[in-house]
Amino acid sequence: MLRRIPAAFFLAIFLLAITSVVAWAGDPTGAATLKADPGKAVDYVWVLICGFLVMFMQAGFACVESGFCRAKNVTNLMTKNLLDFVVGSLAFWAVGFGIIMGTDWNGLIGTTKFFLAGGSYDVDTYLSYFWQLVFAATAATIVSGAVAERLKFKAYLFYSFIISLFIYPMYAHWVWGGGWLAKLPFGLGHLDFAGSGVVHAVGGFVGLAGAIVLGPRYGKFDKNGKPRAIPGHSISLAALGTFILWFGWFGFNPGSTFSAHQLRISVIAVNTTMCASAASVTAMLLVLGKTGKYDLGMALNGALAGLVAITAPCAWVACWEAVVIGIVAGFIVVGGVYLLDALKIDDPVGAVPVHGFNGVWGLLAVGIFADGTYGNYATTKPFVTGLLYGGAGLGQFASQLIGAVAVMVWAFGCGYILFKVLDKVLGVRVDPHEELQGLDIIEHGTPGYPEFYIPRI
Amino acid sequence: MLRRIPAAFFLAIFLLAITSVVAWAGDPTGAATLKADPGKAVDYVWVLICGFLVMFMQAGFACVESGFCRAKNVTNLMTKNLLDFVVGSLAFWAVGFGIIMGTDWNGLIGTTKFFLAGGSYDVDTYLSYFWQLVFAATAATIVSGAVAERLKFKAYLFYSFIISLFIYPMYAHWVWGGGWLAKLPFGLGHLDFAGSGVVHAVGGFVGLAGAIVLGPRYGKFDKNGKPRAIPGHSISLAALGTFILWFGWFGFNPGSTFSAHQLRISVIAVNTTMCASAASVTAMLLVLGKTGKYDLGMALNGALAGLVAITAPCAWVACWEAVVIGIVAGFIVVGGVYLLDALKIDDPVGAVPVHGFNGVWGLLAVGIFADGTYGNYATTKPFVTGLLYGGAGLGQFASQLIGAVAVMVWAFGCGYILFKVLDKVLGVRVDPHEELQGLDIIEHGTPGYPEFYIPRI
Amino acid sequence: MLRRIPAAFFLAIFLLAITSVVAWAGDPTGAATLKADPGKAVDYVWVLICGFLVMFMQAGFACVESGFCRAKNVTNLMTKNLLDFVVGSLAFWAVGFGIIMGTDWNGLIGTTKFFLAGGSYDVDTYLSYFWQLVFAATAATIVSGAVAERLKFKAYLFYSFIISLFIYPMYAHWVWGGGWLAKLPFGLGHLDFAGSGVVHAVGGFVGLAGAIVLGPRYGKFDKNGKPRAIPGHSISLAALGTFILWFGWFGFNPGSTFSAHQLRISVIAVNTTMCASAASVTAMLLVLGKTGKYDLGMALNGALAGLVAITAPCAWVACWEAVVIGIVAGFIVVGGVYLLDALKIDDPVGAVPVHGFNGVWGLLAVGIFADGTYGNYATTKPFVTGLLYGGAGLGQFASQLIGAVAVMVWAFGCGYILFKVLDKVLGVRVDPHEELQGLDIIEHGTPGYPEFYIPRI
Repeated sequence: MLRRIPAAFFLAIFLLAITSVVAWAGDPTGAATLKADPGKAVDYVWVLICGFLVMFMQAGFACVESGFCRAKNVTNLMTKNLLDFVVGSLAFWAVGFGIIMGTDWNGLIGTTKFFLAGGSYDVDTYLSYFWQLVFAATAATIVSGAVAERLKFKAYLFYSFIISLFIYPMYAHWVWGGGWLAKLPFGLGHLDFAGSGVVHAVGGFVGLAGAIVLGPRYGKFDKNGKPRAIPGHSISLAALGTFILWFGWFGFNPGSTFSAHQLRISVIAVNTTMCASAASVTAMLLVLGKTGKYDLGMALNGALAGLVAITAPCAWVACWEAVVIGIVAGFIVVGGVYLLDALKIDDPVGAVPVHGFNGVWGLLAVGIFADGTYGNYATTKPFVTGLLYGGAGLGQFASQLIGAVAVMVWAFGCGYILFKVLDKVLGVRVDPHEELQGLDIIEHGTPGYPEFYIPRI
Repeated sequence: MLRRIPAAFFLAIFLLAITSVVAWAGDPTGAATLKADPGKAVDYVWVLICGFLVMFMQAGFACVESGFCRAKNVTNLMTKNLLDFVVGSLAFWAVGFGIIMGTDWNGLIGTTKFFLAGGSYDVDTYLSYFWQLVFAATAATIVSGAVAERLKFKAYLFYSFIISLFIYPMYAHWVWGGGWLAKLPFGLGHLDFAGSGVVHAVGGFVGLAGAIVLGPRYGKFDKNGKPRAIPGHSISLAALGTFILWFGWFGFNPGSTFSAHQLRISVIAVNTTMCASAASVTAMLLVLGKTGKYDLGMALNGALAGLVAITAPCAWVACWEAVVIGIVAGFIVVGGVYLLDALKIDDPVGAVPVHGFNGVWGLLAVGIFADGTYGNYATTKPFVTGLLYGGAGLGQFASQLIGAVAVMVWAFGCGYILFKVLDKVLGVRVDPHEELQGLDIIEHGTPGYPEFYIPRI
Repeated sequence: MLRRIPAAFFLAIFLLAITSVVAWAGDPTGAATLKADPGKAVDYVWVLICGFLVMFMQAGFACVESGFCRAKNVTNLMTKNLLDFVVGSLAFWAVGFGIIMGTDWNGLIGTTKFFLAGGSYDVDTYLSYFWQLVFAATAATIVSGAVAERLKFKAYLFYSFIISLFIYPMYAHWVWGGGWLAKLPFGLGHLDFAGSGVVHAVGGFVGLAGAIVLGPRYGKFDKNGKPRAIPGHSISLAALGTFILWFGWFGFNPGSTFSAHQLRISVIAVNTTMCASAASVTAMLLVLGKTGKYDLGMALNGALAGLVAITAPCAWVACWEAVVIGIVAGFIVVGGVYLLDALKIDDPVGAVPVHGFNGVWGLLAVGIFADGTYGNYATTKPFVTGLLYGGAGLGQFASQLIGAVAVMVWAFGCGYILFKVLDKVLGVRVDPHEELQGLDIIEHGTPGYPEFYIPRI
């Protein structure tokens, strides 16, 4: 039965898409759009190139997750990281984008622009679509780290489809599509500049749900429940992936102005990198104090934690505040890793502390540190102010707190239901035999490094 | 004798280049060019950054080809991927660029701008040179995959020199330099937006010729002629390379507007990525249906196939058409792999189905799907229309078909002659002993992973 | 005692930073800056994206250095490459940037803009900071290659802090911050377009000092003092890293116009890539003549040598001169490797010949080849002329020579003192036992490839 879903999906595509062609259109050449605003040329260059960088983060996630896991699962992890993008793209095109950016219905859901049909054949709409697509793909791929080394591939395909179809777009609509969170009456409503909550916390908390439903890998906890380190197979791959992610984040955060005419982009770029640096140093020093070792894995996750935390507030704070946010992010990621261990939750790559916990921290940081020097995506809009800058900050903090709770409830709730349903229908966890041998040969037929490592049981 | 070729080449460089300096010049500072058109600042940014992305595809090809081959040849493959670029650059500078973009002679060949001499010392000419250089380098490097694991390195150096000097530039002149294909009287003449034919089919069919002249690797076909899979040594390297290529393709296709004032770039970016996604899903599902495995190698090659196929039509179709083109590309790449196996042609990385067959498919797709909403590099030129959009499409399809035949004949013909001549003069295939041991130690003196893998015979 | 330095550092940060907030500010939104010059939108896009590319070079250095060293030290090398960036960022923010770009004092040192405090909260200042930061980080990371496989990690942390705090910024101020080298009365003063001297020679000569203080690795020279090759553990990682560096260099050199309105950026991009190609071919042919092998390591280092050499003159020469500069760079890098071997200096990755010797060559090349077609960062300034273009070139060559001597003396001197002091205080060289086992387990607790390679003694 399940095999017919792709067929039905593609049939729907054709019917809808073909009708779209005969419908009215927007401005598909871009000539009218450019004439109306000649400054759009540089805006398009900015947004597209930043979007390319965000797309390249897929390579970063693939390398980090593979590097931090074992050689017997590397084909599986790489396949997941490719397939969540390609499958998610189709779901996002069909439905997801319309839910985010279509005409709002009661602050809950967008209702147009499905399949980019009709009037969506327009350069501005396509630009918006490209941007939203690469962001949706980032949220989707975060989860694969948390459920690594034990999830059935078929279940992962369904997960990829659903998160890009529905889970991510719904929440993104609430914040970025004019939904109820954006319209909260406290401060300027819930604000999340580049997606600490929309992208990272969604990915992190869906991942947390997946990790809980799946349970820990064999050997992660000993008989007494003590966690054991399961080292990754290639630290150089993980480090390279982190550098790629950092590079891509310069598209993620500064590009979220969606305009090159906001020269604030220089401040955003500086805040992004300085927060990552501060978080990485902090995380490394914390582990050094505890173990006496300069732990690369934690330094890498520290950098990523800083990048996640600054994603929401990057446009509204000064450099020194970015450093402070990063120091806190370093504490959160180290504490988060220990917390999950204590709770007996197995998150092989640390996706939950990095993206989930620090995503929430980023949302709150807006409500604390926003310094009143910059507005919401435009210099003409009211400036954003946090608690540190006086009484007006209280309302903003309230909006941030509501959004933080909302994202945790929505993402964890949807994720939990999704993985539970998948477990009933397909089963989510591979057989013990397959888990021990690794997923590469049974699911994919190809070991990752056949001349170096033949997985055996 | 052959050793003197580099010396003679460099002597020629000096003589010609030094004369160039005393000759008249264009606008080397760019001040006059900018004054004439202040919008060029953003166009230069766009074209250069897209060009940087295209150059980075060299890294992607290097990783994909190395990852899909065996550890005993990894030094050889990496050296090829570097050397085709650096040797090809010199040939392209000396002669190739002039053949493409120099003053046209009878629709056949360009005749000026060699060595960027004289009036070529001009910011516009250098910009054009940079763009054409990175495209030529892409065509050159495609071939190394098809001839991997058995070609003598010296022969590869000569091949690199010749393809960048002559084979690629001649065909590129016909399409992009105002040659006879561009002037075909059917439709708007032969059109190839970013090079499905010019770059990919040229590379793919030269590669096919090379693979045929060389013959299959030892062990690729058993006594009964049945093909055997020879798995690559690092699936993570191959996957990373594919992501890098996808990233670089965002320079390749949208950058081919050669102007940021064509806001159609957003449509091109969306089409590029959606076609790749659709092709990757399709290729994976096809193999899944046959083998029951989620095959990463085919999913990767599927994505690349989609990228190749959309390269020609990317500017002239809507998103839904890009998805359809991608689905077909997925069928073609899977079918192409089986076809080569049936014909006993050994293409270790699938370069021929990906770049050759899908390059041709991309050319034809223009003649089928172009929807009449966009012109040839400019919104003021006549819009391009394919078969699906009425009778006017017939002429365009004819031009596309002629171009498709031309590229196959030219590339395969030149490639066949080149490798046959190299075989007579140098020999193209390494000794059996060297092939079994791998090419790394004998040709390069360095195994790729000396602490992990010492090639032995 | 040393443990308290971070605490004191962070305390200072807070005190200073918090005061900054109440001080006067520049233009933190960018609205006034854009209004004064609407062309800044495209300049910001150009500078930021080029800066992102430069930051990505960190990944390139990490891969090249790790690939060229042994598997038992890969965690250590990756950690160094991350930590020099994150630690250096904090030092550069606190002090380094102010030394470069703060108000000049007697041509020696900048004296304002520490911690980006007060009026530095300004989009132009943040843009300049971002650019200078990624350049400083490049200089810092060059050294880790020269001191690889035997330096204590703690000593490296202090080194990273000091070079970004003081050594690099002082010299950069002299050239780029209006210091005494920029004001030399010969020619147009000392010129270094993108940092052959400021970045690469500084890194290379500090690295030389480090390599001398540390002494060679065990096994690098036999009893008779004959050098032995110690092959790197992953040629594919080294090759990928080189491609990444090449890609990043397109930000490094063309971005150094700091303006997209200098269309000369197309000339710079062409010169950058052609010089690298010529150098790579030359280096490979030289080794081929000597050993009969196509040596990939030398071809990679040749490309990097060409990139370093063209970094200073890239804006002031034509393509054919870039090719000549590259050919010379190829000779220098090969000769430099043999020279260090003859001097019994162990530079595991060739950082000194690539960055040190060719950095100096780049400075001199400006004084020889500058062809009088372009000024110093602006088309309105006087054009730069070298020896080849007549008598006016003599003064320029003198300025270049003085700068070349200055950078060698400063960088080698500071580096020597720094590593000698660190040796007294901390000890710079790991125990023989640790060196033989590799630094990964003892310093970091994590082998790089635990399933493939367990370092043993």
